[in-house]
Amino acid sequence: MDYPNGQEPGAPIRSGIPEHGRIPKYYAAKVQLETLLAELGEGEALPTERELALRFEVSRETLRQALRELHLEGRLRRLGRGTVVAGPKLEQPLSLASYTEGVRKQGRRPGRHLVGLDRFPAPEKLAGELGLQVGDEVWHMERVLLADDERVGLESTYVAVARVPRLDAEFEPDSSFYAYLHERLGIGFGDADERLETVLATPREALLIGTPGALPMLLIHRLSRDTRGLPLERVRSLYRGDRFSFTTHLGG
Amino acid sequence: MDYPNGQEPGAPIRSGIPEHGRIPKYYAAKVQLETLLAELGEGEALPTERELALRFEVSRETLRQALRELHLEGRLRRLGRGTVVAGPKLEQPLSLASYTEGVRKQGRRPGRHLVGLDRFPAPEKLAGELGLQVGDEVWHMERVLLADDERVGLESTYVAVARVPRLDAEFEPDSSFYAYLHERLGIGFGDADERLETVLATPREALLIGTPGALPMLLIHRLSRDTRGLPLERVRSLYRGDRFSFTTHLGG
Repeated sequence: MDYPNGQEPGAPIRSGIPEHGRIPKYYAAKVQLETLLAELGEGEALPTERELALRFEVSRETLRQALRELHLEGRLRRLGRGTVVAGPKLEQPLSLASYTEGVRKQGRRPGRHLVGLDRFPAPEKLAGELGLQVGDEVWHMERVLLADDERVGLESTYVAVARVPRLDAEFEPDSSFYAYLHERLGIGFGDADERLETVLATPREALLIGTPGALPMLLIHRLSRDTRGLPLERVRSLYRGDRFSFTTHLGG
Repeated sequence: MDYPNGQEPGAPIRSGIPEHGRIPKYYAAKVQLETLLAELGEGEALPTERELALRFEVSRETLRQALRELHLEGRLRRLGRGTVVAGPKLEQPLSLASYTEGVRKQGRRPGRHLVGLDRFPAPEKLAGELGLQVGDEVWHMERVLLADDERVGLESTYVAVARVPRLDAEFEPDSSFYAYLHERLGIGFGDADERLETVLATPREALLIGTPGALPMLLIHRLSRDTRGLPLERVRSLYRGDRFSFTTHLGG
């Protein structure tokens, strides 16, 4: 092991040895599996559970706990009835640029599926955030985010109907909302505040994104303003924690 | 419900109703628990499992699944032998400023416990990142991060011994490393690249931070440069996903 605790700073976490020296059985199996994944390489099929349990001399239950963690961490993914070694997480820049642009830069094809588009009266908090009166109408547009046809996230956009009155008639839900605002309405993004956290997918979200329940997700709350400094949209973007990471550059 | 799907953009996720209309039992219990937490307020003790299972008419096992998710999401925390309603997540700015500063700004007292300080020969990847030759000596300093004596994270700092030769003799591990670099060595931070992802705590990490195993964590990889643009440190910061969120401001 090149690094202290076998823990390379940029690599998947391998270190699992508690200070008191007892390694949980499932974790020992997980470390062996990680070595196997590195040997196999992206896209290669994993041997059957039976075979792996025999090879590592653990029970099926113990093996499954190790596999479950590797799934949650995005090291494995299901393909048809089997399991294959997953590719690295997508690296999405934290920037004003849209999801579309970020995914394209990584050589993946972005897409979006409309789940629903509704208008509803703004409750107090949202009205405050969007600079509206309570009860003013707001669009709620919910879309599943895709990368190369893989469902990777779920995005809810809240924007005042008064600012985008013809959203339901004019906007193609599989395209970039930012491009629409800019090209059709001449609205440019000025700045935004974001907050990132990790949450568990709810059953509804897991169903929409097609993930196992209770998968750790990355949730980004965004409040953006236009180039004049007026509040523009409130966005709630949920990304699969096993498929996404976010990058940022911090200046002096 | 004020919002579509009962899903307030800035609030904890409540929406859990799959499209086919079947709500998992544990999830229904979780939604009821969330209402109860809101009524009780921060710091208040939760009734016993027995009482709650009776009240919501679910099995102890179902109730425990709901409680487990609320723990993982940081809505509950253990206090002595009981469980109390947790406060909101800390909001740490993504910035060049240190952990110390960020925590102080939120009115919490930052602290750090040294786990270990070692020197080791730089392997290839780390040498490349730090602008060193393979085998040049590097410090690895591992510290548990505290906020008001609560263990909230684990930080590994990698820095060339040549740049900070007397780290082991001069540096007080409970203080800010950034302040030390600046005040003792005249080294200022110029810029940094960061990458954020969600990972599961390993058994060793869970033990050091004092969390249940496999808690979703936020992991930040940082590579920072000094004001002359020379690579300075590689940092791997692991924060409890149930206690931390990160904020950033995106400019035009």
